[in-house]
Amino acid sequence: FLILHYCSLYCTMDKTQIAAWFKTLQDSICMQLEEVETERFHEDIWTRNEGGGGRTRILSKGNIFEKAGVAFSEVHGPTPDKILTALNLEKSNFYATGVSLVIHPASPHVPIVHMNTRYFEMSNGICWFGGGIDLTPIYVVKEDARYFHNQLKATCDKHDDRFYPKYKVWADDYFFNKHRNETRGVGGIFFDRLSETKDCTLEQCFTFVQDVGKLFAPLYLEIVNRHKSKCYSEEEKRWQSMRRGRYAEFNLVYDKGTKFGLDTNGRTESILMSMPPMAVWEYNFQATPSSREEETLQLLRKGINWTEEE
Amino acid sequence: FLILHYCSLYCTMDKTQIAAWFKTLQDSICMQLEEVETERFHEDIWTRNEGGGGRTRILSKGNIFEKAGVAFSEVHGPTPDKILTALNLEKSNFYATGVSLVIHPASPHVPIVHMNTRYFEMSNGICWFGGGIDLTPIYVVKEDARYFHNQLKATCDKHDDRFYPKYKVWADDYFFNKHRNETRGVGGIFFDRLSETKDCTLEQCFTFVQDVGKLFAPLYLEIVNRHKSKCYSEEEKRWQSMRRGRYAEFNLVYDKGTKFGLDTNGRTESILMSMPPMAVWEYNFQATPSSREEETLQLLRKGINWTEEE
Repeated sequence: FLILHYCSLYCTMDKTQIAAWFKTLQDSICMQLEEVETERFHEDIWTRNEGGGGRTRILSKGNIFEKAGVAFSEVHGPTPDKILTALNLEKSNFYATGVSLVIHPASPHVPIVHMNTRYFEMSNGICWFGGGIDLTPIYVVKEDARYFHNQLKATCDKHDDRFYPKYKVWADDYFFNKHRNETRGVGGIFFDRLSETKDCTLEQCFTFVQDVGKLFAPLYLEIVNRHKSKCYSEEEKRWQSMRRGRYAEFNLVYDKGTKFGLDTNGRTESILMSMPPMAVWEYNFQATPSSREEETLQLLRKGINWTEEE
Repeated sequence: FLILHYCSLYCTMDKTQIAAWFKTLQDSICMQLEEVETERFHEDIWTRNEGGGGRTRILSKGNIFEKAGVAFSEVHGPTPDKILTALNLEKSNFYATGVSLVIHPASPHVPIVHMNTRYFEMSNGICWFGGGIDLTPIYVVKEDARYFHNQLKATCDKHDDRFYPKYKVWADDYFFNKHRNETRGVGGIFFDRLSETKDCTLEQCFTFVQDVGKLFAPLYLEIVNRHKSKCYSEEEKRWQSMRRGRYAEFNLVYDKGTKFGLDTNGRTESILMSMPPMAVWEYNFQATPSSREEETLQLLRKGINWTEEE
């Protein structure tokens, strides 16, 4: 087992096959999202001067999705100094591929969602998988959060029953707006440097990442279908715009994917496709006591066990 | 002269007097802005657990200013580790006071503006002034930019004719959205660690900072008055929302004042009063060739000499 593990550290997998699978994942997710939509995804192919490129797909002003971005990328080249310093690495090249998506629905009753699955390889022979899914409801619906977490847990448990507890806490800590003392939403799972953290061999990690990727569309669409036909008011749309402001804050202040993209001279429009179509900042907004807005704020905290009924 | 300079490094000035002056500056600016407004500023007094506090004044939904924030603060306490590491300092206390403002006008014909004047003291006996003013037009009007820069230059020249050239370049470099390869607007002046950089003695620096502070309101109101009565279209308002998105990006990704505030556990609503009331992100927006939008984008770059006629 130890030997197997060391093999995995030395990048025993063919990265072109991993990238090819990520492309099929992008295809499959876009197709499934389009099934509930009147609009279609538009594709931009881009290349990066320093090496690699991507395939960004955006659906705008749909009947359900106001802005949905599903991006595949495969980039490589010299690791920028800023990242070398941050990771305390010597001069090296990097390779990164994956699928990243953020969906901003029109209705405040349908949650914002984010998923990312990624593979990294450094020229020193270290390689790993990472990823996660997290849900950001504008109004928290406990049954949705429970369903969402139980589905994630079931997928994790298929691989290792230590995964869900570990990656759920990791998501709570990661998707956190420290300056607001608020989680971004009801969390989900987050994991990084798999195989390096010895949670699985490289091959096992890939199977796990594939299962997470395949889970996304049916899981999210179940929640979309529950709420897509509900009417909403101006006030609910305004609350959504404010919550989107928090989403923008998280992405620009904390999100490592965004920082990595901007630091590695990625395509800005693809990196910032995660930004909300419209956001509002209202100075010192205070939710009305006992309102649904205040109830949601009460639930935006770490450590809630969403898998069990209260 | 050298002796005088060394005195200045050792904080010869009374910080309570500096803070008191910043308070009168806040009063004076708010009064002058209210003269063109139907709405009034509302005040929030806040205190910070670790030491100090502030007086935040916000005017919302005015006839001219959609959101104007003018904040005084005076904070002190142990320097957070994150800042000690960044500045390569040993364990110490800090003291910071100043006035910071950002104004988001309703009309896309009236530019966004930002001003900051600040004083820092570290417990190791180092102290300095900093500050700046910069203008972010939604549509660049060359005569406005020329007037704005010439007024800044005149104020700088009164003190030292090396100031304007140096601080203008500093503003170009500082107010820059690297990931967009765009300046935030037409720039202005930016300066930091005055007295440490030996540009002036501490007393001379304070006089300069006072002159910059006093210049702000008449300078900005001249530009406001030029355009406040112009009509505008839905399209112009939409372009404004997109430019505000860039403004939000700068504040959250690059602005050192925002980072310092969030890192020192400042009052989040006061720090983020600089955020636009509403912002839009449109994926891969391309300005129509030869449109006024494209003309503005062409002028959002470093190194333009705004003081002279073309």
